[in-house]
Amino acid sequence: MTLSKKPVTGMKDILPEEMEIRDYVIGVIKETYGNFGFTSIETPCVENIANLNCKAGGENEKLIFKILKRGEKLRLEEAKGEEDLVDGGLRYDLTVPLVRYYSNHANELPTPFKALQMGNVWRADRPQRGRYRQFMQCDIDILGEASNLAEIELILATTTTLGRLGFRNFQIRINDRQILKAMAAYSGFAQEDYDQVFILLDKMDKIGVEGVEAELLEAGYPKDCVSKYMGLFREMETADNAIDFLMEKLADVLPAGVQESFQEIIQSVEATKGDFFELVFDPTLVRGMSYYTGTIFEIAMPEFGGSCGGGGRYDKMVGKFTGNDVPACGFSIGFERIILLLLENGFQVPGKGRKVAYLLEKGLPSEKLCAVMKEAQEERAGGNQILVTRMNKNKKFQKEQLTAQGYEEFKEFYREQLKLEK
Amino acid sequence: MTLSKKPVTGMKDILPEEMEIRDYVIGVIKETYGNFGFTSIETPCVENIANLNCKAGGENEKLIFKILKRGEKLRLEEAKGEEDLVDGGLRYDLTVPLVRYYSNHANELPTPFKALQMGNVWRADRPQRGRYRQFMQCDIDILGEASNLAEIELILATTTTLGRLGFRNFQIRINDRQILKAMAAYSGFAQEDYDQVFILLDKMDKIGVEGVEAELLEAGYPKDCVSKYMGLFREMETADNAIDFLMEKLADVLPAGVQESFQEIIQSVEATKGDFFELVFDPTLVRGMSYYTGTIFEIAMPEFGGSCGGGGRYDKMVGKFTGNDVPACGFSIGFERIILLLLENGFQVPGKGRKVAYLLEKGLPSEKLCAVMKEAQEERAGGNQILVTRMNKNKKFQKEQLTAQGYEEFKEFYREQLKLEK
Repeated sequence: MTLSKKPVTGMKDILPEEMEIRDYVIGVIKETYGNFGFTSIETPCVENIANLNCKAGGENEKLIFKILKRGEKLRLEEAKGEEDLVDGGLRYDLTVPLVRYYSNHANELPTPFKALQMGNVWRADRPQRGRYRQFMQCDIDILGEASNLAEIELILATTTTLGRLGFRNFQIRINDRQILKAMAAYSGFAQEDYDQVFILLDKMDKIGVEGVEAELLEAGYPKDCVSKYMGLFREMETADNAIDFLMEKLADVLPAGVQESFQEIIQSVEATKGDFFELVFDPTLVRGMSYYTGTIFEIAMPEFGGSCGGGGRYDKMVGKFTGNDVPACGFSIGFERIILLLLENGFQVPGKGRKVAYLLEKGLPSEKLCAVMKEAQEERAGGNQILVTRMNKNKKFQKEQLTAQGYEEFKEFYREQLKLEK
Repeated sequence: MTLSKKPVTGMKDILPEEMEIRDYVIGVIKETYGNFGFTSIETPCVENIANLNCKAGGENEKLIFKILKRGEKLRLEEAKGEEDLVDGGLRYDLTVPLVRYYSNHANELPTPFKALQMGNVWRADRPQRGRYRQFMQCDIDILGEASNLAEIELILATTTTLGRLGFRNFQIRINDRQILKAMAAYSGFAQEDYDQVFILLDKMDKIGVEGVEAELLEAGYPKDCVSKYMGLFREMETADNAIDFLMEKLADVLPAGVQESFQEIIQSVEATKGDFFELVFDPTLVRGMSYYTGTIFEIAMPEFGGSCGGGGRYDKMVGKFTGNDVPACGFSIGFERIILLLLENGFQVPGKGRKVAYLLEKGLPSEKLCAVMKEAQEERAGGNQILVTRMNKNKKFQKEQLTAQGYEEFKEFYREQLKLEK
């Protein structure tokens, strides 16, 4: 036996119990996003290696599963490095493929274009508990909508979906890259230092204001900048209204319209959202990817330490493919984390019809078998789940097993007579 | 611009119109197979290269997209051939992964195990119209069921699904590898020649009895064998009942029970099936894969030249992984061909709620925006599809575009007053 029974390192087989939940969640997601006018799209799992290495993938570009060139293109003896052997790779996210897709098909798509993309992505991360090298992502994106209508719709669609899946008391944290930059400008940091400053700021939820302050000073930033910067965060904590306070401070450095648009997002969502989640302005929210240009948001679940999804505006990415920028904004649900939470909470998929197991004694005459199959077929047409299976010698054990699989009713068919038992 | 807008060679982007049909078909498939007690499973798209090269894939093993080893495992300078560079590959079918999955998890799965697997597979075929290098497969399999209950259930489940998708007047062709072998034995062919004889027999629907006869003779098989063999096919064509005729002829060479079991499959399906398709015994049906051991079947659609799916019994494959054979039988729908047929026939996905587009004049005051978003949210909760979008300057053109996308109702919201128009 040289064949391996295990999946490849870091990837997993999905058992029926989990698949039932996944299929249900996928159904709710497609239906709810459909109600918001998002249309499904699909891109190939394989992308050109140059596209995957276009710097839009950040750290993920180090984790690509690379695919060998084929046929005449593969010249092993002449190859000097990986780049001579590889022409494709498995996608590490759905954003790069979406932007390529939009660039390729813009003429065939409506404006604005509201896309829903669900699909597997691959990252050769170090295998660890609960993180796999193949996992599902679920993104919605609006391309071609410059106004904050995009943000409002994305937040409402995502939270409505989470609500329909039964999630309560979570938070949507919201910030804007332009507010982040204005705060850094207001504090006197040099523009070329912003990215590094934000990386340190991103640690706020772990190490607190004091921790960030210490690290900024350690990194050598001027004391008065750091002190003014940290002052903003400290004063916001005690201010009656953090946004109003901050907006007043940043009045001179924030581009025109940013404040109004940002506040309108918050007002519209607040007016519509119901009370099953909170929308929270979080001036420390950074979001890792460098491609964000405006609003950014993140889902925080009380049951789950980290983020359960996020997104933001990335107005400069389509231009990398076409030369012409197109406004774009997206929101991604952490699909695998959602599934994990549902599994951990013993989530039960709402049933549709009856689940009945037909147990057939061995050697049932052909004419009886025909009658049984016909009866099963009629019950199935009524939307019920009918399992037709051979009766085992140990019928009691067999019924216990079937009960564990959710079969709540049994019909037994014998060579001699027909018996019904509930 | 070094970035490529096109998908990788031979793979395709799927546009919203096609995706709507695909999503609908996937839903019908999952629901119908669910009614038959099949449970969804998922395996990783990547498999160990040794498993993919285990000879169960036939010609597909030449078409594998191979994945480069990573990190320390990749020693380019020492590599002598592809095998030193590659440890995984993209799966070319769902059968090899299913058998590995079952071998890995048999203790956690019910017996018999009824699996539904839908997923992409990859084959580096020469790109051609309508055939892609990434495509969806849809397989159902029953593992651990030795009796013909497996075949009966697989045929009923598959045809019921096709019926629910609106297909009529198709054929399920059925044969048995053991009948094929018995015919060859009866005619006097040597056992080691069977595979080659069947490859030529498989051409019957293209070149007819005369053509096959000529090719068998040309291949050097004894004239009396070929003549006896072809005589069987010729006599069956004129016989009152082809099966009865053949079974009588093969009585001495067919293993015990094969005839009864085969005829019981036909009787049970006939008794249950309704009149939207035909079940036809086809003694010329071969099915390419060498792993089949018993019954084989194929879907033939009048609208479509070739096969639209098929399957059969493969009782010897699990043993390759575990050392112990497990009876197994599967049926695969040609998902991409089904989609192509539906697209070509202008299939319309049955609608659920109303499709309404809200057109918002630019500069709508925040409080009006809030009211609009709230109204949209309420309509969505009722199951309707509400698209909220900015009103374009050319409103007439915009409405035409939206009508083409299926929006049948419009609501317009102005800075000044609220207008409703149908």
